[in-house]
Amino acid sequence: MIDLRSDTVTKPDDEMREAARTAEVGDDVYGEDPTVNELEARAADAVGKAAALYVPSGTMGNQIAARVHTERGQEVLADRESHVVKYELGGLAQHADLQVRTYDADRGVPSPEQVATARVAEDLHRPGTGLLCLENTHNARGGLAIAPERIAAAAEAARERDVPVHLDGARVFNAATALDAPATDVTDPVDSVMFCLSKGLGAPVGSMLAGSEEFVERARRVRKLFGGGLRQAGIVAAPGLHALENVDDLATDHENARLLADGLAAVDGFDVQSPETNIVLADIEGTGLETETVLERLRDRDVLASAFGPTTLRFCTHRDVSRENIEAAIDAIEAAFGAT
Amino acid sequence: MIDLRSDTVTKPDDEMREAARTAEVGDDVYGEDPTVNELEARAADAVGKAAALYVPSGTMGNQIAARVHTERGQEVLADRESHVVKYELGGLAQHADLQVRTYDADRGVPSPEQVATARVAEDLHRPGTGLLCLENTHNARGGLAIAPERIAAAAEAARERDVPVHLDGARVFNAATALDAPATDVTDPVDSVMFCLSKGLGAPVGSMLAGSEEFVERARRVRKLFGGGLRQAGIVAAPGLHALENVDDLATDHENARLLADGLAAVDGFDVQSPETNIVLADIEGTGLETETVLERLRDRDVLASAFGPTTLRFCTHRDVSRENIEAAIDAIEAAFGAT
Amino acid sequence: MIDLRSDTVTKPDDEMREAARTAEVGDDVYGEDPTVNELEARAADAVGKAAALYVPSGTMGNQIAARVHTERGQEVLADRESHVVKYELGGLAQHADLQVRTYDADRGVPSPEQVATARVAEDLHRPGTGLLCLENTHNARGGLAIAPERIAAAAEAARERDVPVHLDGARVFNAATALDAPATDVTDPVDSVMFCLSKGLGAPVGSMLAGSEEFVERARRVRKLFGGGLRQAGIVAAPGLHALENVDDLATDHENARLLADGLAAVDGFDVQSPETNIVLADIEGTGLETETVLERLRDRDVLASAFGPTTLRFCTHRDVSRENIEAAIDAIEAAFGAT
Amino acid sequence: MIDLRSDTVTKPDDEMREAARTAEVGDDVYGEDPTVNELEARAADAVGKAAALYVPSGTMGNQIAARVHTERGQEVLADRESHVVKYELGGLAQHADLQVRTYDADRGVPSPEQVATARVAEDLHRPGTGLLCLENTHNARGGLAIAPERIAAAAEAARERDVPVHLDGARVFNAATALDAPATDVTDPVDSVMFCLSKGLGAPVGSMLAGSEEFVERARRVRKLFGGGLRQAGIVAAPGLHALENVDDLATDHENARLLADGLAAVDGFDVQSPETNIVLADIEGTGLETETVLERLRDRDVLASAFGPTTLRFCTHRDVSRENIEAAIDAIEAAFGAT
Repeated sequence: MIDLRSDTVTKPDDEMREAARTAEVGDDVYGEDPTVNELEARAADAVGKAAALYVPSGTMGNQIAARVHTERGQEVLADRESHVVKYELGGLAQHADLQVRTYDADRGVPSPEQVATARVAEDLHRPGTGLLCLENTHNARGGLAIAPERIAAAAEAARERDVPVHLDGARVFNAATALDAPATDVTDPVDSVMFCLSKGLGAPVGSMLAGSEEFVERARRVRKLFGGGLRQAGIVAAPGLHALENVDDLATDHENARLLADGLAAVDGFDVQSPETNIVLADIEGTGLETETVLERLRDRDVLASAFGPTTLRFCTHRDVSRENIEAAIDAIEAAFGAT
Repeated sequence: MIDLRSDTVTKPDDEMREAARTAEVGDDVYGEDPTVNELEARAADAVGKAAALYVPSGTMGNQIAARVHTERGQEVLADRESHVVKYELGGLAQHADLQVRTYDADRGVPSPEQVATARVAEDLHRPGTGLLCLENTHNARGGLAIAPERIAAAAEAARERDVPVHLDGARVFNAATALDAPATDVTDPVDSVMFCLSKGLGAPVGSMLAGSEEFVERARRVRKLFGGGLRQAGIVAAPGLHALENVDDLATDHENARLLADGLAAVDGFDVQSPETNIVLADIEGTGLETETVLERLRDRDVLASAFGPTTLRFCTHRDVSRENIEAAIDAIEAAFGAT
Repeated sequence: MIDLRSDTVTKPDDEMREAARTAEVGDDVYGEDPTVNELEARAADAVGKAAALYVPSGTMGNQIAARVHTERGQEVLADRESHVVKYELGGLAQHADLQVRTYDADRGVPSPEQVATARVAEDLHRPGTGLLCLENTHNARGGLAIAPERIAAAAEAARERDVPVHLDGARVFNAATALDAPATDVTDPVDSVMFCLSKGLGAPVGSMLAGSEEFVERARRVRKLFGGGLRQAGIVAAPGLHALENVDDLATDHENARLLADGLAAVDGFDVQSPETNIVLADIEGTGLETETVLERLRDRDVLASAFGPTTLRFCTHRDVSRENIEAAIDAIEAAFGAT
Repeated sequence: MIDLRSDTVTKPDDEMREAARTAEVGDDVYGEDPTVNELEARAADAVGKAAALYVPSGTMGNQIAARVHTERGQEVLADRESHVVKYELGGLAQHADLQVRTYDADRGVPSPEQVATARVAEDLHRPGTGLLCLENTHNARGGLAIAPERIAAAAEAARERDVPVHLDGARVFNAATALDAPATDVTDPVDSVMFCLSKGLGAPVGSMLAGSEEFVERARRVRKLFGGGLRQAGIVAAPGLHALENVDDLATDHENARLLADGLAAVDGFDVQSPETNIVLADIEGTGLETETVLERLRDRDVLASAFGPTTLRFCTHRDVSRENIEAAIDAIEAAFGAT
């Protein structure tokens, strides 16, 4: 099987497994796991923040951030296609009673004018805006790598109105790689950032939530509330430390994504969005087939992809698929649907 | 002062006051207030539902409906310009932990396709859609009177997907009047409807929430949770019974709104949306002035209106402003800003 | 029928009705109802606070207070028999996500030691305590009139730990009457107090929530969230002004309660708690009958009371039952059950 | 250091570490991690339930259970000294808007009469009871091993009233060991049970939530909402499989606890509760010292314990402290405080 459903399927390599075996551990709820502590320090550095917190998942990281930044009864501004809105089970309302106010922005990032328009001042009838939540790379819009300038402009517009900014940077190193810029260029303008160790970077479990010392201290308490306080977490933090070393490999995934996109573009009925990072979206309406049917035919030929909307498939490259796998996948898909 | 800020400013007339004085009352928390019971029966009839509940405000009526129709962790579909989204302090998230998914629809009512697109099927990552909330007349879009066919088409699209439909009909009798149709034409397609006695109909206090017997029974309990259970509510229900008699007078308010719109259209820098009911929106960007400045100049000439967006004013006609008042208001506004 | 179920059944008298008819009104959501404004000023005075807010019910008043005083994720301390815990539909959790920590205290008021023990300091595992909620008179414990010293001692213990104190004073004037002290003796030690106009004081609708200017300003916004913002509320506020004049009459209700208690004490199988205010609790286990059976027999003889626990009835005296009514009720009850 | 603060400090042994290194893994959010699947099957068996779910922590397991069992607006019955009430940051209110109704029961388990009394039938003023939550062993009451009969009696009383029952069995195998009974004797009477792999059983991370197939399916979705969906969780599930083999070792911890208790009983000013499992509570009021001072003196002599109330210390034995460690600890404590 060539598994292109998601980069979450990456499996830990031998180094990571050995690191798990030999990790120095302690009780992280007491703050005594040296491996977690090291990971938190290095993760904070990697995104240029004062502190960071290990969390079991990106969803938890985003939800904790929303809760820490806001007060009861506020609104969160977010792109209508963002992960926090679409794929976190309504968590902003569920966990923190926050109303989400969505905007629909080019590349998912609002212009300063959109921030100004969407932002709500607290009054007798209206909750104030308590958070702007951005996403980079932007998953549902096709793995877009958002330029630092756009992030900075939106963030500045928010900050001028005393609205803090959180970045869902689940794949922020993919963004940095694509932009050929340090990750801190993207993260400097925001107050907090979540990134995943368990996607393209290959760790088995975990994400990092970074921000100021005070933010992380409060986040640690909310993590406990969410049941995200782990014990000898060094066992999974140790592979996470190795994951931080894998940033340089992301360029290969991006190259493979372009290769795949070129191949898919030649498939009958496939309309492919040009990839910026490791995600390739293909509209398959032209095949005249149901999404589920297309996915099944791919599966029959040992290729896995994800449904990503009524007529859209998502293919995701990652460290567990090689250039050869991609070429084989293209051949298989062409064989299934014919090529133009 | 000619008060055009809102039809909520209408004061009870002598008949209503006399009705308050002589109302037969009981403890409505025990269901023993005969005047409330009569009002609930007549209100249910007026919108063609099996039962109705007296609630202190339209906001409470809408929020109770959302809570009764949904289960924990669902989404509500609503127009991004709807009252429940914009002016109820994030209540859907606050009271019922519901995520709102907004659409942006012509006249605020989604097409069946928009319903199909916006509706979310429950899965591992996504809350299911638990409610479609419509609004008629549509306040923030300019008091639009939505045709029954549009309501019915959207409601049918929702129902086919097992999504119940609530109508924020704060001004539903204005809609019916403008459409020259019985209110039930608008309310028949929906599961529940809230309408206000305290706006154009002139009652001092209260709104009605109508639906099936079972819906209203559950709503009665949620009303208690919200602190909306009143005691000798007949005192305010009695004027409400008179308010139901005032439906025929709404046509005059609409006529006055058209007269006002025509007058405002001639004012320098005012760009007026053609009114369908009793609400007139005017974009005053052309004056080159701040909204607050324009409102102040109006106030100086004894005319009150509301800010309704960065460059928009809302004027609302109602039973306490006469044709003469409207003419005087136009004169005053022309005097303040000049006419084209 | 002699209705002793609750003092909430009191009906507005002619003076109140005339006041409703002639009330000067405005839109109270805009703060423009002069009668409401006068009522709020006089209510604030009556309990010695800087400001007050008219709310549709005591439940809403208590719930707003809890929300204004606390932050997300805190605990509320309250007597296990208090109204906010027993009869408000779990509102503390529902509206404000607050965990309630109950104590079981003599007369429902914790000793300073109990406050110290029950109060939780915020740490990694524990929410901090955000509010102490007291009740006076204490309904479920038998209408107890709690002495100012006890209120003050508990409140001081809370304040020393930075925990604000709210008083559910639904019947606070009954307490003051029984204690022969000004109401302010009871309310001075607390940060906020709710009292009802619609119980023994006889108003048809409404309660007051009083506290500091800042507290009331924030409460006004939460009231809107709850759907408790009324329009021409002067219609019900005017009777409320008269209700404030009825405080002196409460002594008669208390006298009648003692008379009733003496009578009930002689009834076969009735075990009566000596009343301190207008509430009489009788344990009817000795009758060997189900509570519902006893209530039915009373009803057959034109006397209404409330079930108040597995074997307890509550009788509540009020301005709509006279000494003669009480005597008749005693005769009827004795006739039904026999006297010792 | 002899670390007796908690059994959560246990570190994975070499076998567990090797298991982590060699674990077969997959993406558990997709249900494709074979090691997790095996662990879930074996955990379900161990407590006699149809299915089980791996969760990052016991807190998350308990909170998910509460949410799955209940509907919006209900109450949860729990012992006032239970973990869900005391140490989960008010999660029942925070996550699920549930009011907690506490009872105070001998050994933390209510008698059938207490269940009957505490249980609330839904009516206009009262939320219904949605869950009874028990705890075994009972941590805060001293690691009590609750007999199956008591669990069964309470559970039956709840079930008769249609109230489901969840068991916080964080240390349920300690209970079974102490009772010399299969764990299923304790878990059969309840609808769901959570137990920890990461306490006395020695796994680095994780707990199991077990119940019916339908319960676990719904729990899986709530786990995602909480951010508890992990990816290649086999890395930590593999040590968890070994932890299940460690049940037989718990008897040694209990023996060490008795040894420790005997030793502490001879220390000046220590009043020791006779231990039933691996937890020893000592009231140190007799030392005349602050808890923090006592803890510090212990630390100075290389013994760690926990503060567990104003004058109480908790000592917890576990697989990482040997009989020799316990003897050394007793010597150290005697040296610090003197012996009687």
